[in-house]
Amino acid sequence: MIAVDWGTSSLRAYRLDEQGACSDKRDAALGIMQVKETSFPAALESVVGDWLAAGEVQIIMSGMIGSRQGWLEVPYVQCPVTEREISEGRREVTWDGHRAIIVPGLACRGPSGVVDVMRGEETQILGAMSALGDGEHLVCLPGTHSKWVAIRHRRLVSFSTHMTGELFALLKQHSILGRLMTDPSPDTNAAALDEYFDKGVVRAREPGGLLHHIFGVRAEGLFSKLPPEAASHYLSGLLIGHEIVSVQPNPRMIIPLLGAAALAARYARALTDLGYRPRVMDEDCAMRGLYRLCTGKGTRI
Amino acid sequence: MIAVDWGTSSLRAYRLDEQGACSDKRDAALGIMQVKETSFPAALESVVGDWLAAGEVQIIMSGMIGSRQGWLEVPYVQCPVTEREISEGRREVTWDGHRAIIVPGLACRGPSGVVDVMRGEETQILGAMSALGDGEHLVCLPGTHSKWVAIRHRRLVSFSTHMTGELFALLKQHSILGRLMTDPSPDTNAAALDEYFDKGVVRAREPGGLLHHIFGVRAEGLFSKLPPEAASHYLSGLLIGHEIVSVQPNPRMIIPLLGAAALAARYARALTDLGYRPRVMDEDCAMRGLYRLCTGKGTRI
Repeated sequence: MIAVDWGTSSLRAYRLDEQGACSDKRDAALGIMQVKETSFPAALESVVGDWLAAGEVQIIMSGMIGSRQGWLEVPYVQCPVTEREISEGRREVTWDGHRAIIVPGLACRGPSGVVDVMRGEETQILGAMSALGDGEHLVCLPGTHSKWVAIRHRRLVSFSTHMTGELFALLKQHSILGRLMTDPSPDTNAAALDEYFDKGVVRAREPGGLLHHIFGVRAEGLFSKLPPEAASHYLSGLLIGHEIVSVQPNPRMIIPLLGAAALAARYARALTDLGYRPRVMDEDCAMRGLYRLCTGKGTRI
Repeated sequence: MIAVDWGTSSLRAYRLDEQGACSDKRDAALGIMQVKETSFPAALESVVGDWLAAGEVQIIMSGMIGSRQGWLEVPYVQCPVTEREISEGRREVTWDGHRAIIVPGLACRGPSGVVDVMRGEETQILGAMSALGDGEHLVCLPGTHSKWVAIRHRRLVSFSTHMTGELFALLKQHSILGRLMTDPSPDTNAAALDEYFDKGVVRAREPGGLLHHIFGVRAEGLFSKLPPEAASHYLSGLLIGHEIVSVQPNPRMIIPLLGAAALAARYARALTDLGYRPRVMDEDCAMRGLYRLCTGKGTRI
């Protein structure tokens, strides 16, 4: 089978055997924003055409490919949901004798009725479910739009999205704060940069609010209290710190982190700074989740 | 005398008589970012050259013109400060037989030692001091970088800056949220847009944090709960609401608002939404403050 994690800015494809073992993996910068509406089949074939040609194969996809801007809009499934309910929400696309399943995203209504949405992260969570085990969890999936997902007895109960990654990029590229930042030189002490990250994280716990705290990047820079090459680390700490403080995780629970290793490590550091116990999970949860949804069983590996 | 409020993106000049009455006023898009370092005298003369030619005249300037990127860097004066201490921090520039005073900005150290800075707003506050009267005040100056200034017995005690205006512009122009926004059509009901602004303001009081709340602009839009032409109003309400909630003003005090009328009206509406009593002051406080600092007395008008 072919499992495809197809998001806004990239496509990641896995070739899996019947036991869910991965024999090949391909990445392409062919996110749905890069592909024109009518050419999703061509984009997929450009990445895994040889796998498709090798014979009949099951294809399953998750992520923004199921959004309004994707191949086929697959309606959101409302939280709380089980794996079975997510699986039942899937839709099929066909082309040139091929067929593929697209996994639905999830929607959730917060305490005050404001909605939230995800596409792709539900599949990553299903892929981590065996490792998480039963009981209660609050899982963090860092990213451009980070997700925090509450799980109870293998049901995805509720979640919230945080625009931390996007805001960091915006402030760095387009704001007055970005003008003060320089890239670290090769001989910059990495531990010193980490300390500025930590300072940002714990600053988030103090009163004043995010809109005030971020201006500190400028004011501290003016007084040479924040070196230009450390400014982006401090800002990153501030934003991740504010995300964590807003979520208010239960300090007695271990917090599983799912996602790209480098960013998960940043979040693990921030969580530790704030007195929490993080647990970094492996990166291939999307692949495992797609296998579960396609076969109805966990991978043996 | 000539009073000049010279900021990052604009220059505003007032021609005042000995009593502080304004006989002429000029605006130019010649902020310090638009003017090359060496050509500040030329920029000033391009706006008020005829006033300068009319005879000997006192010139006083405040704002970013006294910053490192301005005409002359005037060192910050540390809060808490009196009007006299601000006045004592002034510096002089001379050119072609003219001389001009530049007012210093203020610096302040927050409870945890993080610094904050302002340039120009201190002059606006001095201009409003007579109208404010004695006692305690928490004055709000909305803007690209809003300031909240605590005043006690005519001393500027402390302040905090909030990047609300800049963040609003960034999110509207460069983020995924901006892609969902459209300008209201001429027949859009203004009262309906105001209601979305109010919804944003009161949302800021709820748990979840700013990074989560702003994603609501997207999620609510996907479910047609937020019309594209109202999305920027909702976002504006969210950000202003978060600024006010972070500042936690004393609900028993009236909150004076100093600044451009349209933005002050937005803040007044948001403050009222959150149960506070705002008081919009007039727009010419900078002029009045410059007159005070130049002459040592309040205007009679």
